[in-house]
Amino acid sequence: MAHEEVKVLSTWLSMFGLRVLIALKHKGVQYEYKEEDLQNKSELLLQSNPVHKKIPVLIHNGKPVCESLIIVQYIDEAWPSSENTSILPKDPYDRANARFWADYIDKKLYDAGSRILRSAVAEEREQAKKDFVEVLETLDGAFLTFSKGGLYFGGDDIGLVDVALASFLCWFKCYETFGDFKIWESSKCSRLPKWAEDVLQHASVKEGMAIAHPDKIVELVQFYKKKLEAGSK
Amino acid sequence: MAHEEVKVLSTWLSMFGLRVLIALKHKGVQYEYKEEDLQNKSELLLQSNPVHKKIPVLIHNGKPVCESLIIVQYIDEAWPSSENTSILPKDPYDRANARFWADYIDKKLYDAGSRILRSAVAEEREQAKKDFVEVLETLDGAFLTFSKGGLYFGGDDIGLVDVALASFLCWFKCYETFGDFKIWESSKCSRLPKWAEDVLQHASVKEGMAIAHPDKIVELVQFYKKKLEAGSK
Repeated sequence: MAHEEVKVLSTWLSMFGLRVLIALKHKGVQYEYKEEDLQNKSELLLQSNPVHKKIPVLIHNGKPVCESLIIVQYIDEAWPSSENTSILPKDPYDRANARFWADYIDKKLYDAGSRILRSAVAEEREQAKKDFVEVLETLDGAFLTFSKGGLYFGGDDIGLVDVALASFLCWFKCYETFGDFKIWESSKCSRLPKWAEDVLQHASVKEGMAIAHPDKIVELVQFYKKKLEAGSK
Repeated sequence: MAHEEVKVLSTWLSMFGLRVLIALKHKGVQYEYKEEDLQNKSELLLQSNPVHKKIPVLIHNGKPVCESLIIVQYIDEAWPSSENTSILPKDPYDRANARFWADYIDKKLYDAGSRILRSAVAEEREQAKKDFVEVLETLDGAFLTFSKGGLYFGGDDIGLVDVALASFLCWFKCYETFGDFKIWESSKCSRLPKWAEDVLQHASVKEGMAIAHPDKIVELVQFYKKKLEAGSK
């Protein structure tokens, strides 16, 4: 294959950016990582994603691809490989299911998690925690039929849903700290806690998420919350 | 091919449901259409989409697929065909671009359109109209590079972005009526008005959208607005 230039614009704590890194690691693609300062976005980011102006962006031989799940599917298609590292399954129905659950995570989990961190009103925060746990319980129910007896949503190896959900795990400590609860203990999830342990040990996930430290995320969110509180006094 | 059973659960005025019908027509797939009453959803709908409980749902040989853009991609993959009726392009980068713009329509256009219809405050309605027109202008800018000189976003034939956007056209009269404006005249779109004319003449779009009458949509929205007003007095 000709020399390829692969750049990722992201920030170390973005669950959406981490998905891209996990997928690239899984495919064995070398890339250059560029940390973005979201308070002062680079010209390259603004030019590469003029519509949303958001990270992550993958730039492959000068051509930008935006939106994390679209990037992950692009990576799967641009670097086709052996069955072992396919991120989407082959069967059209299985593919539709993988897209459905990845989309579900995007629509429901991020929102509930953000509300846990942002809510100043106790009642709203409790509702957010309840919503967050319910999303995980729904995913727990899906896991059993979806994983076909394997360790992952993707079966014997990680797939789109694993990539989409695993990237959230580094935020769990933060949700627990500011929500003052234990996620798994508050839930009826029977299978997902083990999935979380397993997926974090998967080489592609471990390497892709190496830049994201749960303790540092807690520290940073604490810093911004204090800054906000000071500003509102 | 063995006997296939294809059902679509939708309502006649849903832009999301219409996408599914356009895609099936484009592939030449025979289907049974089931009109849903959203005030009184069928057991089949609730069983087929227990997570979101929303239309449209495609049921293919007993197996449900949900979420309109996921369904359209499923149709493209489950009924692979000649290049002529491919809904997604072959090239991975072109596919990512098609997904990006279809996703953009979902994230931005529906919301702005709904705000035109719902806003009781004049200022909010004006902002919604401005947002709606801006989304179309952004799509207009994308069309030139995207269509590669063809009549459609998909080039010489319709593709994912055409399917995603065309289904909104039957709502334009409604947005114009209740927003008291002319969409194209209020915009700087140079190419999209012609695209709209062409795409509505495309056989798959014409047949798929035959059930959706712009005048009836206006009447129905008028009916619900009056009911709401009467209720709030």
